[in-house]
Amino acid sequence: MNIVLLSGGSGKRLWPLSNDIRSKQFIKIFKSENGEYESMVQRVYRQLKKVDPNVNLTIATSKSQVSAIRNQLGDGVGISVEPCRRDTFPAIALSAAYLKDVAGVSPEESVVVCPVDPYVEEDYFETLKILSELSDKGESNMVLMGMEPTYPSEKYGYIMPTDKSDVSKVDSFKEKPTKDIAEKYIEEGALWNGGVFAFKLKYLLDKAHELIDFEDYRDLFNKYDTLTKISFDYEVVEKEPSILVKRFNGQWKDLGTWNTLTEAMEENIVGKGVQNENCEGVHIINEMNVPVLAMGLKNVVISASPEGILVSDKEQSSYIKPYVDKFEQQVMFAEKSWGSYRVMDIDPEAMTIKVTLNPGSKMNYHSHKNRDEVWVVISGQGKTIVDGMEQNINAGDVIAMQAGCKHTVIADTELRLIEVQLGKDIDVNDKQKHEL
Amino acid sequence: MNIVLLSGGSGKRLWPLSNDIRSKQFIKIFKSENGEYESMVQRVYRQLKKVDPNVNLTIATSKSQVSAIRNQLGDGVGISVEPCRRDTFPAIALSAAYLKDVAGVSPEESVVVCPVDPYVEEDYFETLKILSELSDKGESNMVLMGMEPTYPSEKYGYIMPTDKSDVSKVDSFKEKPTKDIAEKYIEEGALWNGGVFAFKLKYLLDKAHELIDFEDYRDLFNKYDTLTKISFDYEVVEKEPSILVKRFNGQWKDLGTWNTLTEAMEENIVGKGVQNENCEGVHIINEMNVPVLAMGLKNVVISASPEGILVSDKEQSSYIKPYVDKFEQQVMFAEKSWGSYRVMDIDPEAMTIKVTLNPGSKMNYHSHKNRDEVWVVISGQGKTIVDGMEQNINAGDVIAMQAGCKHTVIADTELRLIEVQLGKDIDVNDKQKHEL
Repeated sequence: MNIVLLSGGSGKRLWPLSNDIRSKQFIKIFKSENGEYESMVQRVYRQLKKVDPNVNLTIATSKSQVSAIRNQLGDGVGISVEPCRRDTFPAIALSAAYLKDVAGVSPEESVVVCPVDPYVEEDYFETLKILSELSDKGESNMVLMGMEPTYPSEKYGYIMPTDKSDVSKVDSFKEKPTKDIAEKYIEEGALWNGGVFAFKLKYLLDKAHELIDFEDYRDLFNKYDTLTKISFDYEVVEKEPSILVKRFNGQWKDLGTWNTLTEAMEENIVGKGVQNENCEGVHIINEMNVPVLAMGLKNVVISASPEGILVSDKEQSSYIKPYVDKFEQQVMFAEKSWGSYRVMDIDPEAMTIKVTLNPGSKMNYHSHKNRDEVWVVISGQGKTIVDGMEQNINAGDVIAMQAGCKHTVIADTELRLIEVQLGKDIDVNDKQKHEL
Repeated sequence: MNIVLLSGGSGKRLWPLSNDIRSKQFIKIFKSENGEYESMVQRVYRQLKKVDPNVNLTIATSKSQVSAIRNQLGDGVGISVEPCRRDTFPAIALSAAYLKDVAGVSPEESVVVCPVDPYVEEDYFETLKILSELSDKGESNMVLMGMEPTYPSEKYGYIMPTDKSDVSKVDSFKEKPTKDIAEKYIEEGALWNGGVFAFKLKYLLDKAHELIDFEDYRDLFNKYDTLTKISFDYEVVEKEPSILVKRFNGQWKDLGTWNTLTEAMEENIVGKGVQNENCEGVHIINEMNVPVLAMGLKNVVISASPEGILVSDKEQSSYIKPYVDKFEQQVMFAEKSWGSYRVMDIDPEAMTIKVTLNPGSKMNYHSHKNRDEVWVVISGQGKTIVDGMEQNINAGDVIAMQAGCKHTVIADTELRLIEVQLGKDIDVNDKQKHEL
């Protein structure tokens, strides 16, 4: 089965765990079968692999997520990198070109496209397989997954099938309705549109070429920033007369706010935390290394990370975005392809960072115009290359680097460094890459 | 006026701001007239100086508070250091010997002893002056301050005066009563015992010599650990027939819990914090450098420090101690005579600390048996002495010190360092002092 997961943009609705560069799908918050915490994207990948060990998985995403994906999923997945954000039609068109030209998928094969972030069980992925098989049969140009509504929601679009059977033809699509109208739709057998589409790769390539003037993947990639922002639903699905919909009535949750996310958590406390016996419905999600103590709270979510601390009534946790938008945020934690870093201290002319490199990984060979750096190795083994000079490093070694000096570090084992950046104009974008 | 402030032990009832080495009286939480935050001890000192610019102030406290007192109050106060904790009678006896033998106070002068932590206004200190003057007159051996009760409290001891006049003779003392009995006492004119005593220094020295076998201050200091733990009320006050009590009906608050402390705060937010419009009665006291966002909470106190995060219903904030006792706490922040330090990261074999030295201050010349250290200077000027070698230092300088090497740093301006400690057995007690 060919799957394209659409891994959407960053968001602040799960601040302080999600932010400008860290999206909710990468937060390790769900307890997996082996007792370790996994992120949404790791959970989806594990579930997919179980349902189809040979799945050909491609993640369509922005450049800013590539490091986190490689770090969390390894090299076994394809990544169709969007040079900039252009909504779902351009993203799906680009991933179609990627599948054909980079991954070598035959245009006759079916592809299933779905969002990366619904919180689902294995039956969802079994249903993706059925969608793929229905697409293989070629009885329609497209197959959708329709979620059985559990209440007359005003926040979903509705699919109107021609009848109430398990697989039906689609009659029409309806915009987000009012509650009364939603009730009427549901009586008629309407389904929520879950944003899951299956089709032959050829179908999508034809649509893409029809609507965008491009030659191949590379060409489309290069002109991506000139494309119009438009959704796949609007540009393709709602204009397509030949669509089937397969009903799905398993678990399907949108964990976009703290309120919904905590409902899906198996444990009330992730990280260091204690609640007294007078707490009810309290969730603590703590990424800090010090404890959170909750006393006598009801229906409250507490989340702490190096970016900040949220304490919110669960109902009101849906409304944090405008407040978070006003925070001047220094990114305090980031996953990189080589590991991760955490900002520990910001002084007017210095920044202190803890850097953790994964075994076998290395940074780019780079320099900075406007800052000196000092590395103090605190654990592990590896080597540094500084202005072409190689040096083995161990705990206790100190490497001082002036502005302009080219440097990298290569980890043999897991390697941890304290990095002190020094200068008047410390800026994360002050980084020049060099050939080694 | 001679004042002895009893600066009591550390406590966890205001965790995460107070802990094993940082007592509540040093938390900078009250807005002073010039708009800066001050601690209880700074507030009391400022108020005292205003009422009596020539006050001779001595603080009776343990060794662990000396650095914080010097850092917050400077060198203008005397400190009677208790070698260990032995309750209030030995502490007051030691401070009496200190006043005579170290501070050179005449035995004929009056001394007023009071706790360091009540939250009061200037009228309280004016009343201390009246107590001192009443003591000067010599009409009784001791003068107490009696607080006018505002409710039949079960948590205070009561002073029973012979009548209801402003200054009366004391008839008897009553232990903490039940509410019904407290009501009866109050009808009879009883007053709360506020722990404020005035007497001639001679009186106290005589009592001390009568009850303890010692020669002078040095001798008492040296045998301090052999003394019995006993309160001054029990050992002296309750046995003394000649006592006057002066009524006081001004503000007098015990800010021992978050609930009472937040009542005394003028602002709902100290540090970085935001509350949405649905918060009511919420206090945020945030010592971290990242924001706290509170949404839709009622009567909750949120406090964050490098030690941890408390989120508590205000009523229940009185009950945090047993929970905090269970936390394995690394001290993450401490005031020292030369400045302060903050632990930023703890790794199995490394600890990273931010050190701030006040202008003109210096560390002891010292070494460590079991750890190497690296200093990276991030701002300011000064010099280091390492194994006898002096070196001027500026931002960007790196000093690497092997275990056993003797070192100190001297700050010309405010000086900030990142210190990385390295070793298998990093221990705050691994410190050997040397003569320079």
